[in-house]
Amino acid sequence: MTTPSGAPGKTDERGTHRRDPYGHADMQRLLEPASVALVGASSNPASLGGRTLANLSTFPGMLYPVNARHAQLAGRTCYRSITDLPESPDCVVLAVPQEAVMDVASECAARGVGALIVLASGYAETGEQGAREQQALLALGRQHGMRIVGPNCVGVAHRGRGLHAAFAEFPPGPSVPGARVGLIAQSGALGLGLSQAAGNGMSISHVLTCGNSCDVDVADYVAWLAQDVSCDSIALAFEGLEDPQRLREAARLARAAGKRIAACKLGVSDDGRAAARWHTNTATDVDGGWPQFFAACGIVQVTRIEALMENASFLAKAPSSRTGGVAVVSGSGGTAILAMDAAQRHGFSTPQPLESTAGRLRSAVPAFGSPRNPCDATAQATRNPESLLACADAMLADPQYAALVIPWGRSQPARLIPELGTLSRRHGKPLCLVWMSQLAGGAAAEEVEQQPGVALFRSLDICFEALANWQKV
Amino acid sequence: MTTPSGAPGKTDERGTHRRDPYGHADMQRLLEPASVALVGASSNPASLGGRTLANLSTFPGMLYPVNARHAQLAGRTCYRSITDLPESPDCVVLAVPQEAVMDVASECAARGVGALIVLASGYAETGEQGAREQQALLALGRQHGMRIVGPNCVGVAHRGRGLHAAFAEFPPGPSVPGARVGLIAQSGALGLGLSQAAGNGMSISHVLTCGNSCDVDVADYVAWLAQDVSCDSIALAFEGLEDPQRLREAARLARAAGKRIAACKLGVSDDGRAAARWHTNTATDVDGGWPQFFAACGIVQVTRIEALMENASFLAKAPSSRTGGVAVVSGSGGTAILAMDAAQRHGFSTPQPLESTAGRLRSAVPAFGSPRNPCDATAQATRNPESLLACADAMLADPQYAALVIPWGRSQPARLIPELGTLSRRHGKPLCLVWMSQLAGGAAAEEVEQQPGVALFRSLDICFEALANWQKV
Repeated sequence: MTTPSGAPGKTDERGTHRRDPYGHADMQRLLEPASVALVGASSNPASLGGRTLANLSTFPGMLYPVNARHAQLAGRTCYRSITDLPESPDCVVLAVPQEAVMDVASECAARGVGALIVLASGYAETGEQGAREQQALLALGRQHGMRIVGPNCVGVAHRGRGLHAAFAEFPPGPSVPGARVGLIAQSGALGLGLSQAAGNGMSISHVLTCGNSCDVDVADYVAWLAQDVSCDSIALAFEGLEDPQRLREAARLARAAGKRIAACKLGVSDDGRAAARWHTNTATDVDGGWPQFFAACGIVQVTRIEALMENASFLAKAPSSRTGGVAVVSGSGGTAILAMDAAQRHGFSTPQPLESTAGRLRSAVPAFGSPRNPCDATAQATRNPESLLACADAMLADPQYAALVIPWGRSQPARLIPELGTLSRRHGKPLCLVWMSQLAGGAAAEEVEQQPGVALFRSLDICFEALANWQKV
Repeated sequence: MTTPSGAPGKTDERGTHRRDPYGHADMQRLLEPASVALVGASSNPASLGGRTLANLSTFPGMLYPVNARHAQLAGRTCYRSITDLPESPDCVVLAVPQEAVMDVASECAARGVGALIVLASGYAETGEQGAREQQALLALGRQHGMRIVGPNCVGVAHRGRGLHAAFAEFPPGPSVPGARVGLIAQSGALGLGLSQAAGNGMSISHVLTCGNSCDVDVADYVAWLAQDVSCDSIALAFEGLEDPQRLREAARLARAAGKRIAACKLGVSDDGRAAARWHTNTATDVDGGWPQFFAACGIVQVTRIEALMENASFLAKAPSSRTGGVAVVSGSGGTAILAMDAAQRHGFSTPQPLESTAGRLRSAVPAFGSPRNPCDATAQATRNPESLLACADAMLADPQYAALVIPWGRSQPARLIPELGTLSRRHGKPLCLVWMSQLAGGAAAEEVEQQPGVALFRSLDICFEALANWQKV
């Protein structure tokens, strides 16, 4: 059915209008546009319009800068208005002041534009007048079947399409093939900060922000990523959602497509909820509480935002969940001890290896190492990688263990990692590398990215949390 | 008094011999040597001896490679043995196999060497035979007043002296003046991993490892750093300690010198303790438990190792502890909401500003911002830094707040940071920047490093933990 506002949906038992997440056709002109226009394109590289124009420069489709004061911008013809464009663009980014948004949006609607990305603030987050203006913008969009992203947002990026329609400088992911995380962040600043994980070797397929979410919200983005083959798992950070049931439906679509979701809900405290009302004024609660809601959706809830991306990447890499204990192999006794402490904090059993496993460990580690769990292959493992691989193989083969954790002081030698990947796949168990340096990245991290089954963490606690969540969902 | 083994100390009521931490004179030839010899120096850059030789190349004093198979190494005269050296070196690094250690050590003792750094493993961590050999090494050292670092360690670095007597590639700290953290890590791999914080802009004055700690232990290092003017606070990661009372005494010396200590105790779980016995075989327990012990010592205990360096840097920067709530100012509503959630998790009050403060906030933030706590100065604060500074000034002036937290998606503009430093000093309150990107660093981080009172975190939870600990000690 179709509601008067043009959005498909249904009315629930309380009489509340509910729409399903937007389908592929509803979102295609937004996220797979053939043409993009930027109203408010600017020659000032520090302005919103200038930054967005620079980010859009890699777009392979038609790009139309719109600004009445320029004939050319960035080597392209610049147009006076949307009306003057040679075609009706699929997607239009509005980098104009709040006062000008409604006029431009009306022009876009009249021209048959498919989607607007509205950067301006000054809407529902400021009070009743702003809320009315946001409602008018939404009504216009619904009337013309024109998707609206924002207002009060930084934009979107879809790497597989070369689309970077945002004023924020989302970094590109590494150029290696990997477990591709689709990042959805209601807050643009978080989208920008979290996407920097790409600089640590993580493949990020999308950065999708929505700010006030008057039309397109995080549930719509989840539904999109569920069917987008360029994404393997979903990282979601959001503060509010008009209709949490829409997220439940989107999560069901993602699950059906074999994609797992890690989510960080902002505004879980009283003060945080109050702050959210002043930020995007989206509804922040759900009946029964968020932990129960996420559990029912099969979504992994992450409390600390810094754990979100590594959890999502792990979920893109881990094979099917299995029960059991955890084995630890390390080249350093200190990191192995810390791993035991963290395992205990997170309720894991760390049984001693079977006698057959111990025999294999004994023949692989030096006399001053430990053929136990944790297995300390000693610093010699750095120079003699075969010993580390032999220990990893023995531990992964032991049926007591569901996963293997390898803590290390910093990055491991990149040359080892493909062989660890082979072992993980052979045994069908996840292998978690924990590099205990906040700076560890580079070539070795890009090697990890290419190995299904091998996940990278920079915190033991985040690693064991991820494993615990994996065993729960 | 002097015990039969040559170490100063006393005998306690149980008849256990106790020595005090070594004093400056006991440790000077180790950590401020005029001359260093490397036995086992090698032309193979991948070997322990080759790596140590490369690391020692910046040493400004006399450096003597020792290896009977070379006449020259790295452009220096290479000597056949310690006996053949033209002088008695202050400090000798033994990069030789375990079987050769005792002979070389005896030669060093006969030559009047001041300190040995023994890299080889195969001692107390392997069983009774190894323990006996370690005891013999210690007895030799005590008999000749020769300090012994290790065995089973990676070495030491003292940046102010240009001393990098280790096979591990500890990075140099940034070249900016800052709050200098002295890092003590029993485990070499942790010393290496944790010291990489230098690449994120943190000043690290020393990296001191001790492995099996047969003679010099972490307490001796704490006592050294207490009096070393090139260090402002101490980060300590260790698994065991023969005599915890020695650490208590060393902590007293540090406190008296105005230096605070953050410590991560490894092996706090049953499995972790068992692993520690197999690693360095040092005693891992203390009467009454570690949390009580650390509290009695005025040491901040950190559970998660990844929080250690930021805690220590904060302690080097924070003014005197004060009670009160926390104010949050941000350029992003999302990060502000997360800060409120984290504040509540850590038990902080986040009161609303006084009316006079709110008035100042109102005149500084745009209409769509929030002149509240948290204060959302909006993304305009990125382009108009004056508004962020005005908000910070207003919040720091409000007597309800003990500290100000500024969360941000990634690095802030470097140009803002000196002015934030001025505000922190003017109000005598710590200002915590939280950059929610694991990659945030660079020029802005180096600016933060130069501002007393301004501390940098990459995790809200680590920030609020540090503030809570600061209010406790």
